[in-house]
Amino acid sequence: MTAFLTILGFNSAIPTANSFPTAQLLEMADRSFLIDCGEGTQVQLRRAKAKFSKINHIFISHLHGDHCFGLPGLIASLRLLGRETPLYVYGPKGIKKMLETIFSITETHRDFEVIYTELEAHHSQKIYEDSRVEVYTIPLDHRIYCNGYLFREKPKPRNLNMDEIRKYDEIEVCDYQNLKNGKDFQLKDGYILKNEVLTLPPKPPLSYAFCSDTRFKEDIIPIIKGVDLLYHEATFLKDLKEMADYTGHSTAEEAATIAQKAGVKKLLLGHFSNRYSDYSVFTDEARGIFPETYLPKMLERIEIG
Amino acid sequence: MTAFLTILGFNSAIPTANSFPTAQLLEMADRSFLIDCGEGTQVQLRRAKAKFSKINHIFISHLHGDHCFGLPGLIASLRLLGRETPLYVYGPKGIKKMLETIFSITETHRDFEVIYTELEAHHSQKIYEDSRVEVYTIPLDHRIYCNGYLFREKPKPRNLNMDEIRKYDEIEVCDYQNLKNGKDFQLKDGYILKNEVLTLPPKPPLSYAFCSDTRFKEDIIPIIKGVDLLYHEATFLKDLKEMADYTGHSTAEEAATIAQKAGVKKLLLGHFSNRYSDYSVFTDEARGIFPETYLPKMLERIEIG
Repeated sequence: MTAFLTILGFNSAIPTANSFPTAQLLEMADRSFLIDCGEGTQVQLRRAKAKFSKINHIFISHLHGDHCFGLPGLIASLRLLGRETPLYVYGPKGIKKMLETIFSITETHRDFEVIYTELEAHHSQKIYEDSRVEVYTIPLDHRIYCNGYLFREKPKPRNLNMDEIRKYDEIEVCDYQNLKNGKDFQLKDGYILKNEVLTLPPKPPLSYAFCSDTRFKEDIIPIIKGVDLLYHEATFLKDLKEMADYTGHSTAEEAATIAQKAGVKKLLLGHFSNRYSDYSVFTDEARGIFPETYLPKMLERIEIG
Repeated sequence: MTAFLTILGFNSAIPTANSFPTAQLLEMADRSFLIDCGEGTQVQLRRAKAKFSKINHIFISHLHGDHCFGLPGLIASLRLLGRETPLYVYGPKGIKKMLETIFSITETHRDFEVIYTELEAHHSQKIYEDSRVEVYTIPLDHRIYCNGYLFREKPKPRNLNMDEIRKYDEIEVCDYQNLKNGKDFQLKDGYILKNEVLTLPPKPPLSYAFCSDTRFKEDIIPIIKGVDLLYHEATFLKDLKEMADYTGHSTAEEAATIAQKAGVKKLLLGHFSNRYSDYSVFTDEARGIFPETYLPKMLERIEIG
């Protein structure tokens, strides 16, 4: 299985003629997760040719406008598109009051339920789990209550090694599930065939961590340890470190330090301040610490792992 | 003086990859009025190279999302752009609660005041007046409380006819303002020079009427009588008249009938249902009744009058 991240917007604060605020679509284990939803996200989803009906879970990092002002319009459009299945929205406490006030005043009646999970904790929590994926919060340090999100595939069953299995008539189809689950097989003569002989290891589970917006926060390192892809905001370069601290943001150097210490495989930067027009300065700064650093490209569908 | 209307968005309901919901920028008598503010309006304003700081008055027709979901983001951006002067927002009762709830929860602190005029009346009211422009509501008939807006320049002073004035030494510079204001001039010998001799008529005041969203409503005709430009929604063609009535919208034929009966100079259509891709069917239908009917073009700056 593969996972893909589509960048729907990666700019900070004020949208310009050709930029969009933060929003990402994560496709993992055949699910579509929307992460943050700045103004214009629904238009970007259309440009990305994403299936609106596949989005069942929306994760909002924090309630600053450039991360959530696209939600009312997106949800209103889902209604017009005839959605009937529930929509799950995760975000800071207050998100329900804000959205339901808007829907009430704008008379946005829905044929589907919006189920809110409002977050208040300051420690990492598992907030979503199904048969194949788990999602954890990553408490961040911003001006307002803010969480990143860790998306992690569950370990997959082992693959049958049919070349080996066929050597033993005693192993029948009904035994395969036990083998996939890692069990050894005992032959009638009492000999135990080790599972590692009869199966091959599965592809390692994929993982993605989204960290925006935040000051440099080393506490997140154990949570995001070794992820296949880390998105970490880098609003400023290191010469504006004081500005970053003051506004609750990170520098490219700080994002790279987090990536390096967490031993992630790749780092994707974003949320660049409008003062920069050539973003290569961010990778120039970050790659000195963490070479596998990349810039987002609008509407690019990045393969994870 | 001239007036200009810039179309920032003219689509109904669901934004698509290349469409924007209703928003218009009216430049009249050196003022910039924003009319409706669907999601993405701030991006369209940038594309139109409009000056954000010149927008002091925003008029919202009704609180359906495709006419107001761009407001929170626009106002948050005005704050980031350093605005300090008050912003006046006109719209249906409820607009203040909706916006202030959003600003409170998203901690959008402002250095400028937002002054709300909440509307509830079902008759036309003068809601704005300055030295050069007046704005009136146009009560419409939609599924939710809705007003159009009539923008009307005040009559301008008459222009001095210098060729005539120079014939009379008695007329001095200090008399000019009285002449511009339409007063006659009495010579020392008692003879009265008629104002029409000494002045030339000013350019007629320009007027623009915005009517969206609404069912066919003949009551608006006296209000919009003879305007230079009428924008009237036409969500459907006449073969879907029942659908138009049911959803609180108009057909192209109905919009043209209003234009024709009101004796307006030009009609601009918009708010087309997503079911249509070639909009020329709307002008085809409308021009049978009102030939001076036009389609909006995205980001076009239309001269009024």
